[in-house]
Amino acid sequence: MRRKQFVVIGLGRFGSSIAKTLYSLGNDVLAIDSDEETIQDIADSVTHAVQVDATDENSLRTLGISNFDVAVVSIGSDVQASIMATLLARELGVKHVIAKAHNELHGRVLKKIGADRVIFPERDMGVRVAHNLVSSSILDYIELSPDYSIAEIASPAEWHGKTLKELNMRSQYGINVMALKRNNEVNVSPSAEDVIEKGDIIVAIGGIEELNELENKIDR
Amino acid sequence: MRRKQFVVIGLGRFGSSIAKTLYSLGNDVLAIDSDEETIQDIADSVTHAVQVDATDENSLRTLGISNFDVAVVSIGSDVQASIMATLLARELGVKHVIAKAHNELHGRVLKKIGADRVIFPERDMGVRVAHNLVSSSILDYIELSPDYSIAEIASPAEWHGKTLKELNMRSQYGINVMALKRNNEVNVSPSAEDVIEKGDIIVAIGGIEELNELENKIDR
Amino acid sequence: MRRKQFVVIGLGRFGSSIAKTLYSLGNDVLAIDSDEETIQDIADSVTHAVQVDATDENSLRTLGISNFDVAVVSIGSDVQASIMATLLARELGVKHVIAKAHNELHGRVLKKIGADRVIFPERDMGVRVAHNLVSSSILDYIELSPDYSIAEIASPAEWHGKTLKELNMRSQYGINVMALKRNNEVNVSPSAEDVIEKGDIIVAIGGIEELNELENKIDR
Amino acid sequence: MRRKQFVVIGLGRFGSSIAKTLYSLGNDVLAIDSDEETIQDIADSVTHAVQVDATDENSLRTLGISNFDVAVVSIGSDVQASIMATLLARELGVKHVIAKAHNELHGRVLKKIGADRVIFPERDMGVRVAHNLVSSSILDYIELSPDYSIAEIASPAEWHGKTLKELNMRSQYGINVMALKRNNEVNVSPSAEDVIEKGDIIVAIGGIEELNELENKIDR
Amino acid sequence: MRRKQFVVIGLGRFGSSIAKTLYSLGNDVLAIDSDEETIQDIADSVTHAVQVDATDENSLRTLGISNFDVAVVSIGSDVQASIMATLLARELGVKHVIAKAHNELHGRVLKKIGADRVIFPERDMGVRVAHNLVSSSILDYIELSPDYSIAEIASPAEWHGKTLKELNMRSQYGINVMALKRNNEVNVSPSAEDVIEKGDIIVAIGGIEELNELENKIDR
Amino acid sequence: MRRKQFVVIGLGRFGSSIAKTLYSLGNDVLAIDSDEETIQDIADSVTHAVQVDATDENSLRTLGISNFDVAVVSIGSDVQASIMATLLARELGVKHVIAKAHNELHGRVLKKIGADRVIFPERDMGVRVAHNLVSSSILDYIELSPDYSIAEIASPAEWHGKTLKELNMRSQYGINVMALKRNNEVNVSPSAEDVIEKGDIIVAIGGIEELNELENKIDR
Amino acid sequence: MRRKQFVVIGLGRFGSSIAKTLYSLGNDVLAIDSDEETIQDIADSVTHAVQVDATDENSLRTLGISNFDVAVVSIGSDVQASIMATLLARELGVKHVIAKAHNELHGRVLKKIGADRVIFPERDMGVRVAHNLVSSSILDYIELSPDYSIAEIASPAEWHGKTLKELNMRSQYGINVMALKRNNEVNVSPSAEDVIEKGDIIVAIGGIEELNELENKIDR
Amino acid sequence: MRRKQFVVIGLGRFGSSIAKTLYSLGNDVLAIDSDEETIQDIADSVTHAVQVDATDENSLRTLGISNFDVAVVSIGSDVQASIMATLLARELGVKHVIAKAHNELHGRVLKKIGADRVIFPERDMGVRVAHNLVSSSILDYIELSPDYSIAEIASPAEWHGKTLKELNMRSQYGINVMALKRNNEVNVSPSAEDVIEKGDIIVAIGGIEELNELENKIDR
Repeated sequence: MRRKQFVVIGLGRFGSSIAKTLYSLGNDVLAIDSDEETIQDIADSVTHAVQVDATDENSLRTLGISNFDVAVVSIGSDVQASIMATLLARELGVKHVIAKAHNELHGRVLKKIGADRVIFPERDMGVRVAHNLVSSSILDYIELSPDYSIAEIASPAEWHGKTLKELNMRSQYGINVMALKRNNEVNVSPSAEDVIEKGDIIVAIGGIEELNELENKIDR
Repeated sequence: MRRKQFVVIGLGRFGSSIAKTLYSLGNDVLAIDSDEETIQDIADSVTHAVQVDATDENSLRTLGISNFDVAVVSIGSDVQASIMATLLARELGVKHVIAKAHNELHGRVLKKIGADRVIFPERDMGVRVAHNLVSSSILDYIELSPDYSIAEIASPAEWHGKTLKELNMRSQYGINVMALKRNNEVNVSPSAEDVIEKGDIIVAIGGIEELNELENKIDR
Repeated sequence: MRRKQFVVIGLGRFGSSIAKTLYSLGNDVLAIDSDEETIQDIADSVTHAVQVDATDENSLRTLGISNFDVAVVSIGSDVQASIMATLLARELGVKHVIAKAHNELHGRVLKKIGADRVIFPERDMGVRVAHNLVSSSILDYIELSPDYSIAEIASPAEWHGKTLKELNMRSQYGINVMALKRNNEVNVSPSAEDVIEKGDIIVAIGGIEELNELENKIDR
Repeated sequence: MRRKQFVVIGLGRFGSSIAKTLYSLGNDVLAIDSDEETIQDIADSVTHAVQVDATDENSLRTLGISNFDVAVVSIGSDVQASIMATLLARELGVKHVIAKAHNELHGRVLKKIGADRVIFPERDMGVRVAHNLVSSSILDYIELSPDYSIAEIASPAEWHGKTLKELNMRSQYGINVMALKRNNEVNVSPSAEDVIEKGDIIVAIGGIEELNELENKIDR
Repeated sequence: MRRKQFVVIGLGRFGSSIAKTLYSLGNDVLAIDSDEETIQDIADSVTHAVQVDATDENSLRTLGISNFDVAVVSIGSDVQASIMATLLARELGVKHVIAKAHNELHGRVLKKIGADRVIFPERDMGVRVAHNLVSSSILDYIELSPDYSIAEIASPAEWHGKTLKELNMRSQYGINVMALKRNNEVNVSPSAEDVIEKGDIIVAIGGIEELNELENKIDR
Repeated sequence: MRRKQFVVIGLGRFGSSIAKTLYSLGNDVLAIDSDEETIQDIADSVTHAVQVDATDENSLRTLGISNFDVAVVSIGSDVQASIMATLLARELGVKHVIAKAHNELHGRVLKKIGADRVIFPERDMGVRVAHNLVSSSILDYIELSPDYSIAEIASPAEWHGKTLKELNMRSQYGINVMALKRNNEVNVSPSAEDVIEKGDIIVAIGGIEELNELENKIDR
Repeated sequence: MRRKQFVVIGLGRFGSSIAKTLYSLGNDVLAIDSDEETIQDIADSVTHAVQVDATDENSLRTLGISNFDVAVVSIGSDVQASIMATLLARELGVKHVIAKAHNELHGRVLKKIGADRVIFPERDMGVRVAHNLVSSSILDYIELSPDYSIAEIASPAEWHGKTLKELNMRSQYGINVMALKRNNEVNVSPSAEDVIEKGDIIVAIGGIEELNELENKIDR
Repeated sequence: MRRKQFVVIGLGRFGSSIAKTLYSLGNDVLAIDSDEETIQDIADSVTHAVQVDATDENSLRTLGISNFDVAVVSIGSDVQASIMATLLARELGVKHVIAKAHNELHGRVLKKIGADRVIFPERDMGVRVAHNLVSSSILDYIELSPDYSIAEIASPAEWHGKTLKELNMRSQYGINVMALKRNNEVNVSPSAEDVIEKGDIIVAIGGIEELNELENKIDR
């Protein structure tokens, strides 16, 4: 796989996190923002950082935007600029355009304008955090579908000293243990003989109802 | 498990998403914001919504904040208010206080002030989205630790028609298949005999390096 | 033909002129603006005037926008609101959506979002006025195509007392006389025997080059 | 005819459109605005562009305004500056002064101050667009007088295949066909034997009532 | 002489001083300002005080402005409003319109717009005060023409005990003594035998050069 | 008399008028303002113009303010700066300090702070203009005391052709004629035999009641 | 002694602290501020709290300010209002006027205007705190004169177990022990036989040099 | 004792007073503010003055903040910056951190964040001034504890000519005389034979009730 070319437009907290992560994963990242200071802050964490007005067609053209594989339009609060930049990225020929939306209506505009994917980071993060909060045992929670989720569960006292086989969670709760975290080590192929110790975290997959039921039991 | 009592302070995109999700999961949710219009918009989606200055100790006391199990301080751009509200929630006796930080320094203050957990939603979401973007086969990506992750992978053509046993991903790539998604159905206990079909999505757990290697192969 | 239903969104100088003219031509006109004072000023000159935020989907739905034949989105300086209102008018089912653009890029967005026609009133009016100005004989000038135009020409002294036949403008200049204006009366079927008098204005159609040549001659 | 000298004061959307069009028609155009960026944007599209305060008498004098044939005062939203610039253009001896007004009262001031012609571009464009909108067959519409207009009409199906003679529009509707547009070609001397084809556009002149009656028929 | 009807538009320091003085001199005074508080402050010092936008034709018409003998447009810093109000006062038929100008260019506009008299209070007051300052003996100074002035002169010690005849100022200095002020009493018909006492103030008329020469002598 | 040294602090319309007039009368004038542009505009009309913060003691000291004969503090709308500058001028040893006040309370502060004279230019000018307005015959009017005034009177038709002796204004109206203006010439020693002609203007001194009575008669 | 009447004008942090303390000491306190919310906050901690513009003479008169013994003008950042209120308090007959100044120049104005005492709370508090900081043993420090001060000193280990007589601080350091603080008890008449214990704080008076010398010794 | 190293962050009236006083007492003082002008003003009164954003960790680190003995965070109105700077000073290893709080809640945050001492200068100064005001004899007043205070008392007429022994204040009023001020001289060891003269000021220590009783007597 050749190195991918990403352009990230708009370097707020969300955009700069994307840009830095992409770069740290070994990709070419061009970071664009209209604020000079923001550009200076990120310069060392991306391939190239340029202070430019992303709604100015000529500027984008000069930067050779059309050669990029993916454009991420993560412009903060300026909805107009977000729309303009998305349109230009699309028209200039970027293969894949992802855009951040502020609300549902903004998202619909971005779709019409040609965004391949529209994301709502604060809303989605809110959903994820909310799930994490409902049970004190659930440490993290990721929806796979409206019905199934993955959860990280702090092991309750009653499980300590028992093997996965003894706990038999598939038949007890209808969930599958996928991994065990112990002292920042992750065992991704736990065997039936592994014994749960105090402090262990269980990564499980299962139906949402089953996970809820489990939470109720261990939180009691 | 009795119904949990949540108070969500600050109802921007992130906070309102948390509040609505918690309420939809069957919890009692008190939603607080200083903006009257914001309160009206969320009133039907939470148990109780009140327009109040969350840095005013008497107001919080009057609302009986001390009886809540969890406070989520998701105040938007006003760092001062975020700090004050976190301190008050802590001092008034809320059992668990989660606070959103804007940057690393803000996060350190929140920790010192007594927040049990500090979250950086835009930053974390940026990391997650970045991982999703690096490979066209990786549809979603969640870090479990600095070393291990879970990934949703669109099955490549070469896998179609083969059983999980034939693919033997554990020995081939060092990863474990945890679930199969097919037409929005999730099979959380895939057997070795399950055959991968076109359009199937594989939920796998593994080391980050192994997942990257897999990506490179299937994206070629 | 049944009375047409128009909704005009945004009541600046351009929008209010459209709304009033449509109403005076016997149409049903719903006029919308976010400014209460603007609404009061136009209330007597349209069928119905409502102060409403045109980017709020529920408000537009409540007003029954979907039943209107034509929506004119003439929102002034707020490009974001212009885009949002255009999208909503389109999605709510208005048959024909016309939108005013501030510049070329804005116009392209509006087209993508679903506007049937995009207009640039200040730019077009500037073109028209400029043509009117280039010759002191040309009183008004309307482009029909990049090649042909209609012009109102103040008759020069040398034409006075001559018949259209004598002037023979088709063979002389390659243009056609379509009408004669005399003291605010318009003769739309001038005959070859009509005599040009001092103060007469000639409405002519012709190629742009031919009209320019004519201007040069009569301005000399 | 010698090249005319125009000065355009105020380079908003309307003013810059005038300035560019005049220049493209082969005239000398001096473009003035108080905003440096605006001047840079237009510099290549006019003879000379200068950043100057148009209410400063000395500056205008230095630019030799008095030698210009026509001044167009198209200052945007600043009514005071519009008045001051118009007075100065007049007093410095410009032969012909045209000024844009924002409302009727502003227009009266400009007249008193000495403007030869006062124009209301947004209002006039609104009137024109409104007329275009009332019938789906009427594509463009220009008032010649309170009684007579010119209209571009999309030919209805019932006209296709017929000659102008057969349609006999003068006796049928009291209007005169002045030109035929077909595939962007304009025939400015249509003969009685010309056959209307599908997609043809008819440019007609007539009384406003007659044109309305025609619209009603073909829209039915 | 019947009571005169004045309308004073704009009640800053200058306008309110005019309005109050006119009223105290026994005239009918309508005072107009756009600021409610200003109106309340002056209500007891004029016949009638109304909070109204003086650039709104209908409002002025409703107030019956056309019946007033004199309009004083003393609008403070808003040049546009000053021009609009002056035009409206003129067009509504006020017999005599006086307007305050901020600078020379503004004054020329007001003249063109129809103001009968244009005044520059700060500038004129500055001239007057400056003359008063040039000599410590000159207490007040009013220009009658470019050549002649009236001055109030503090009598120097050398004049004390002498009669006007002895001083013989007409032949000595070419000026005429018109009045004597003593302890706030004014003798407007001083006789040649009147003796100047310490503290007396002499009101004299004369050529500007002669007055200057006098100043020089008595200041030495 | 040696040339006097004036410093004028604050160069609004009032202050710049004082500064220019003092300079034109042959005095040394230092003009001070905090606005650079204002300083440039007046630089050629005074001896020396300096952009300086007049509330900064060191700056004033550096300029050698203490050597000036008179300071005029004519600071516009900033009451605080007016007070500070007046105090500093006083304390730095300027012999005579004159200050402009915005209202009565401000005036009292200035007096306490040490201003030798406090002036209210707009208020005083308003009084003067008001008197000029009450009669169409009174062209100018200056109060000498609460009881006596000087007035310029346009001669009514009934006076034309008569000598001052025949008119006998002292016994008729109790006023004294001090001068006659004819075609911009001022006769400051009119004799009893001088005949009043049409257009003559009479400069008269008298009691306020007597002048009012005269006005009533000639305006009838 | 009858209850004293205080009026405190301006209720920022400094003013409200004065007002509350005076009231808690048993005095009548009228608290004045222009901000309604501020008034509501302090209403229960003073005799009477009124929202009023303290630069409006009539309002102050209506409140009967002249009957108060002391006025404290503690207006925050508005220097002009501070000056006006001080002048009015003085002129209305308040016996004693204390005013807070922002800087030295402001203080001089207040003195001239009639303030009996001018205070610079932030500056003075800064001096006091600075002295407290120079030695870790000095807990508080108050200047009595440029030469003498009072200091609270944390007793060093070497003093513990010794009597005041043994320490003989007057001859050793030239300072006098005035009081001993032990566990929040203050012994204001310490005898020579009192023994210093660990944790004791000594209140001493002495020359500034002597106190500095002492600090140096005990901090070593 | 070696010279102490102080850093003062925030140079408003309070902070600059601390910085200057510390420097004048012979300490090394680094003064920090985000405003360039403020830095220039204080540059000559401290060891080193630097314009820097005190919430930027790298900047503080570059300045070597960790080597300072004491940090005074006296940031004015920006509560957020105050908190951030306090945290950074603490974390970078400053031995002693003192911070100014705006209100009680702010103070609690500063304590939690790690401030060793929190001061409320305006509030404390208000308390002190209030005590000084309650009696015209009490010139200054410092609380030592909730029960005991030190007071400077203007000696009443009845004391004049008497020795301290005769007055016997300890038994009469339960207070101790600690010092006598006469003409700016302070006698810190007054003997029983010292005679009180007119104008003498007595520095006394005593219980708050006793001091109040004394005030009542001497004020009567």
